[in-house]
Amino acid sequence: MNEVPHLMEHIDFDTTFLVFDLLAVFMFAASGALTAIRKKYDFIGVFMLSFVSGLGGGLIRDAIFIQAGPPKAVTDSKYLLVILGAFVLSLIFHGSMHRLKRTVILVDALGLGAYGVVGAEAALQEGLVPLAAVLVGIFNACGAGLIRDVLIREEPIIFKPGQFYAAAAILGCGIFVGMVELGHADHTLAAILATLTVFLMRILSIYFDWQTRPVLDEDDRS
Amino acid sequence: MNEVPHLMEHIDFDTTFLVFDLLAVFMFAASGALTAIRKKYDFIGVFMLSFVSGLGGGLIRDAIFIQAGPPKAVTDSKYLLVILGAFVLSLIFHGSMHRLKRTVILVDALGLGAYGVVGAEAALQEGLVPLAAVLVGIFNACGAGLIRDVLIREEPIIFKPGQFYAAAAILGCGIFVGMVELGHADHTLAAILATLTVFLMRILSIYFDWQTRPVLDEDDRS
Amino acid sequence: MNEVPHLMEHIDFDTTFLVFDLLAVFMFAASGALTAIRKKYDFIGVFMLSFVSGLGGGLIRDAIFIQAGPPKAVTDSKYLLVILGAFVLSLIFHGSMHRLKRTVILVDALGLGAYGVVGAEAALQEGLVPLAAVLVGIFNACGAGLIRDVLIREEPIIFKPGQFYAAAAILGCGIFVGMVELGHADHTLAAILATLTVFLMRILSIYFDWQTRPVLDEDDRS
Repeated sequence: MNEVPHLMEHIDFDTTFLVFDLLAVFMFAASGALTAIRKKYDFIGVFMLSFVSGLGGGLIRDAIFIQAGPPKAVTDSKYLLVILGAFVLSLIFHGSMHRLKRTVILVDALGLGAYGVVGAEAALQEGLVPLAAVLVGIFNACGAGLIRDVLIREEPIIFKPGQFYAAAAILGCGIFVGMVELGHADHTLAAILATLTVFLMRILSIYFDWQTRPVLDEDDRS
Repeated sequence: MNEVPHLMEHIDFDTTFLVFDLLAVFMFAASGALTAIRKKYDFIGVFMLSFVSGLGGGLIRDAIFIQAGPPKAVTDSKYLLVILGAFVLSLIFHGSMHRLKRTVILVDALGLGAYGVVGAEAALQEGLVPLAAVLVGIFNACGAGLIRDVLIREEPIIFKPGQFYAAAAILGCGIFVGMVELGHADHTLAAILATLTVFLMRILSIYFDWQTRPVLDEDDRS
Repeated sequence: MNEVPHLMEHIDFDTTFLVFDLLAVFMFAASGALTAIRKKYDFIGVFMLSFVSGLGGGLIRDAIFIQAGPPKAVTDSKYLLVILGAFVLSLIFHGSMHRLKRTVILVDALGLGAYGVVGAEAALQEGLVPLAAVLVGIFNACGAGLIRDVLIREEPIIFKPGQFYAAAAILGCGIFVGMVELGHADHTLAAILATLTVFLMRILSIYFDWQTRPVLDEDDRS
């Protein structure tokens, strides 16, 4: 927030974040809609799950952690229109969306980092402690998936061993908050570095199929 | 809120809404209690599920979406007393309550619409955007059932194909917000029309057994 | 808050409550971590469940019911550090923690009552009605376990017949709010009495294996 280096001068931080925020909301909503369609829900179920998935992360961030008035999602029509768009597009194109798999993975990897940063930045701006900012970032990035899994009665995928997903978000939020709070780095610079780190970690873990492991090994007591 | 037609003059909007709000809370609480009894929970489980079901919709509305101080439910004793009443009555009369099935369906159909309108109206009064007001209305009407199903580990019934329930609530909230925001209609008039539409749609869908269908047909890929 | 008896004069109410609050957060977080380890989650799953379990009760209290700005847990680093500590200790010592079973039961029984009182007191201070204060106390004491069970897809243990757990919390919160609101008793005195009652009821119910029973008996209709 303090010193802005010259190369950053013409990047509008707020607009960039709004775009990432809306992009993430769109992707979360579409992912919720497609999950609902696959679970053979009716169009109401698809509608509800689009909204809950699209709003989930932001609502946890604004309503549970930050609490500075009504969440952005309900005072700015753009968010709900984006979700409505994701809902309608998913209804129409769900048959052919599996062909976009590679694109979705790239956008998702980019969104994961960016959305973590959006949450952490919002928390810092409201005066939350740094550790809490990291936590809010993580929930902003992973909360929607958590809520979606709970609602459709599947064990939350981020809890179970698999490719680095939440781990990448945690690292990214840690880098962003660390650079800004400890290193007094420029927020835009920190945001870009953190987002790229998450992106790389996520893509590499998919490409090389890196897997996390259960904490409890077989030789432990149950 | 602007012009009040003569025939509406002696209907007190706030009192009417309080009555519907309390009626809906009572029904949601009783429905939660009866579900808990059927699931063989102990009296604590019945107690907890009565409260969570009774408060669920209103808490989502007040605490997640609107955020203007503590929810009404915890600053006005009437709400908790009504839930306590529903809890006690369910404990005593659960054996004979299935005889009231027809009455319950009628009251539930009336409450569904009224509660959607209550939520949408509260959202509009707090300055939320119209689309958000529709969403808050839907969650106010259907949120309690959603929370109840998640807590007792059943797949939320409103997600799955069935008779028009959430669909009726969505239509009703859309009519109310549309009339008030686009048509600048009187709020009481819009509320009555929206509630009656939900009531009719719900009763007809039960009578004729109208069913929604999964979005995904058998010929699609899974 | 009004008259403070002499024997209470040198007990600092706020400090005592902070200590109990942190102790309860630690225990809830450790309990969440150990559950996640047993469920074979990876270290991210253990991390997330530690935080959700540790913060759960307090977040429900502050963010859903009381709503006076950001929850304490995200504006005071002590809470998150305590959870981080519980997470790390659980990772290291989970193999030997079953040897501490007796200690954990004693501390848990003490924490259950204290945490209920902490929630009820916070609610009263923010002007909630007495009945709501009892409810907030119950959710403060039992909310973390409820959220933990929902997230790991197990039927919430507090709903089902078993030893007196939530029942003890309800009794304790009722005693505290009753003494303070009806009897105008000193808050510290009421807190101690309520906590001890919960502790005794819990320990006795474990020792003598008192069990609650389903409301629905076999001779009822399903």
